[in-house]
Amino acid sequence: MPQGQPTVVPDDGLTTRQRRNRPLVLVHTGVGKGKSTAAFGLALRAWNQGWPVGVFQFVKSAKWRVGEERALRVLGESGEGGTVAWHKMGEGWSWLQRGQQDAISSEEAAREGWEQVKRDLAAETYRLYVLDEFAYPMHWGWVDTEEVVSVLRDRPGTQHVVITGRNAPERLLDFADLVTDMSKVKHPMDAGQKGQRGIEW
Amino acid sequence: MPQGQPTVVPDDGLTTRQRRNRPLVLVHTGVGKGKSTAAFGLALRAWNQGWPVGVFQFVKSAKWRVGEERALRVLGESGEGGTVAWHKMGEGWSWLQRGQQDAISSEEAAREGWEQVKRDLAAETYRLYVLDEFAYPMHWGWVDTEEVVSVLRDRPGTQHVVITGRNAPERLLDFADLVTDMSKVKHPMDAGQKGQRGIEW
Repeated sequence: MPQGQPTVVPDDGLTTRQRRNRPLVLVHTGVGKGKSTAAFGLALRAWNQGWPVGVFQFVKSAKWRVGEERALRVLGESGEGGTVAWHKMGEGWSWLQRGQQDAISSEEAAREGWEQVKRDLAAETYRLYVLDEFAYPMHWGWVDTEEVVSVLRDRPGTQHVVITGRNAPERLLDFADLVTDMSKVKHPMDAGQKGQRGIEW
Repeated sequence: MPQGQPTVVPDDGLTTRQRRNRPLVLVHTGVGKGKSTAAFGLALRAWNQGWPVGVFQFVKSAKWRVGEERALRVLGESGEGGTVAWHKMGEGWSWLQRGQQDAISSEEAAREGWEQVKRDLAAETYRLYVLDEFAYPMHWGWVDTEEVVSVLRDRPGTQHVVITGRNAPERLLDFADLVTDMSKVKHPMDAGQKGQRGIEW
């Protein structure tokens, strides 16, 4: 929570207001906890602003983030704040046909997810995009990082994008406006404790 | 998100289930973003489990966390999931009388907050406590870290506690079950950009 004045005032021809409201790309990476949790916390702020929020979960299991999903669905349907659309790779993306959902590999599914994000960015469907665990498909080379950077750079309007996951490519970190590295200092699993309900999911 | 088996199985006489459901103390510290945001993301999971959640905001300004507060209030009142109680030091703690709220210093207010947390822990009022920015009063010596550790160690029942803030004392980190350090890799303020609505609050 940095406060007060920025240390550098850039010579970019923008007013403070224009600079302040510039759309951001945020990356939460590192091996510690809190990367996705913090992204969903950010979604609460966006919801409070009345922004349409789009979540794309680039993970295999549909069981992940059940708590966050239910909370954001209840918020999106509360009639207060913004709307929330929640897309899950783990269930086969909803825009794919049933047969296509079953036949697709994880690699193809990740690419399908990215294609939809591109369509939504072009259409300015959301004001905040949570691309949960999207660092992985880039890291594994399933989705081309250079293309991601180029699409994000040229996205129209005011669309904020937060990307989570370990091993976010350097190229993405170079491009992003805000990068936080979550490092593990200590975790209960080190002491032989498994994950638990309400804490890990 | 560590997966699979723990690397060490301790010889502590507990079953895996008992060990799994052990109440946790979590600390989010470091100079990067996401410490509080991740704590409120965790509150979504607790809410989803139907747990009573108590938030204690140890910050001066009542304006902070407005997005998270509204979201969690809407969730708490939705009739689904758990209840949410939100206590703000910045408005003078609600349990204090009006005259007392105005006359109190920040240091006294922080101590009053901690006294209430102690009462709630003893009464098992909540199942998740978010002690937002509580690292500061400990760091400044307003609240005795040794006492905090001792109260947390002896708390009854299954009460999880997450503490956020920079400069969390080493003694607390030693005691905590899970510690994540959020490090700043890059922040828009470095490029002369101020905080913006929906992102910083």
